[in-house]
Amino acid sequence: MQASGGKMNEEALLKANERIDALSAQGIRIIQSPEVFAFSLDAVLLADFVRPNRKSKLQTVDICAGNGAIGLFLNRKLGGHITEVELQTRLADMAERSVALNQLTERYTVINADVKDIYEYLSKDSADIVVCNPPYFKDLPTSEKNPNPHLALARHEIAIDLAGIVAKMSGLLKMNGKAYLVHRPERLAEILTTFSQYRLAPKRLRLVYPKAGRDANMVLIEAIKDGKAGGLKVVPPLVVADQAGNYRPEVQAMLHAH
Amino acid sequence: MQASGGKMNEEALLKANERIDALSAQGIRIIQSPEVFAFSLDAVLLADFVRPNRKSKLQTVDICAGNGAIGLFLNRKLGGHITEVELQTRLADMAERSVALNQLTERYTVINADVKDIYEYLSKDSADIVVCNPPYFKDLPTSEKNPNPHLALARHEIAIDLAGIVAKMSGLLKMNGKAYLVHRPERLAEILTTFSQYRLAPKRLRLVYPKAGRDANMVLIEAIKDGKAGGLKVVPPLVVADQAGNYRPEVQAMLHAH
Repeated sequence: MQASGGKMNEEALLKANERIDALSAQGIRIIQSPEVFAFSLDAVLLADFVRPNRKSKLQTVDICAGNGAIGLFLNRKLGGHITEVELQTRLADMAERSVALNQLTERYTVINADVKDIYEYLSKDSADIVVCNPPYFKDLPTSEKNPNPHLALARHEIAIDLAGIVAKMSGLLKMNGKAYLVHRPERLAEILTTFSQYRLAPKRLRLVYPKAGRDANMVLIEAIKDGKAGGLKVVPPLVVADQAGNYRPEVQAMLHAH
Repeated sequence: MQASGGKMNEEALLKANERIDALSAQGIRIIQSPEVFAFSLDAVLLADFVRPNRKSKLQTVDICAGNGAIGLFLNRKLGGHITEVELQTRLADMAERSVALNQLTERYTVINADVKDIYEYLSKDSADIVVCNPPYFKDLPTSEKNPNPHLALARHEIAIDLAGIVAKMSGLLKMNGKAYLVHRPERLAEILTTFSQYRLAPKRLRLVYPKAGRDANMVLIEAIKDGKAGGLKVVPPLVVADQAGNYRPEVQAMLHAH
């Protein structure tokens, strides 16, 4: 039978300590492993923040792809081709298998490479959209890092820092191409300053608050390469959870199909 | 009688087309004239955003003081001396008379001067707090400016631009002194970049939304001179009005005494 055959194939895609999770709102299933990487709400929010564009020649790149979550979450919103760049071989391999799991191999390419070497794989000024959910924390001598090297690389700026990431986001983009970044509000000043140094004009910004009455813990930014300075729109805030800690309806809708 | 005597004295303080408005939440009355200047909600929000500091030696400067509203609204929150700097003679004169009206002449000084010349009046590195509600709009050849020169100067960067203002805010502040600015979110990237150029590290930021579901139309920023970069807190948003257009309770509380 088709259904059980599908099920058997899927299990064959999994390696040790991996599981398949779903983002039903986007019709996507994704291979995860808490040992090395599992997508977080940040990925869902960034994908939600990207504006739809279904042009068939669209070129989108995720430069800190992890297990490929954000790119996969964009499968309905964006036309054309999506390239996922991930430094860690273990995660790039998971991303590759998640692309197969979703039968999206024709529209997706996974590149297992250091973003620093990205121009060996992708041309400068070639992308319409570049998305990134980078490591949030500076790699300082005093930083307490996760003893798990997979998680440490995803959270701390060990392999690349903010300026390195923004430089590559900008370099990959065509003129008027769009950069989308999720990051911590603590670094907003540095982010906006770095964007302007690398020809990215911030045009839309959304603050994400964990609950009403709490400080923001995420910021979503859309910027246009070589866009005119100024004209930044700060769109309505997102409050993730109600006071009891349950996701509010806007977040529920990002997660679950109706 | 004291009351009617007071009333007579107050009327003697008014010139043609002026009126006295109250900010009862701060126990302040202020001389206004729609012809030349009347404080707006922006001034109330900026004063609300300033952290209380009742040190008796505190030195606070408002460098774009208009009719002196923000400085006066800070009368209970801040100790020490408050200096209001205003370019327009007509407005500086109103500020001076409002200080008298509130019997605050011992704690306030009004300087009628161009901010560009401020070091002729105040020492560099002398202020603990500098506040500013500057002109929001660039003075471009294409800008539609108010034909009333008083209002045009208050709204457009005719006499001074953002970099000029931030330079003086920073210059006046002592190391670790605090700068408070209200501005338009459209220019947030430029503001944060300019702050960092002038040694001001943004530490607290609040977005103000006119109603739920609308883009932000104001941003409040606190920065510390020579503060460590990073660590910006984006505090809970303020939504000014309900869907019917009535001020919400948090704003009501800023305006009216209870």
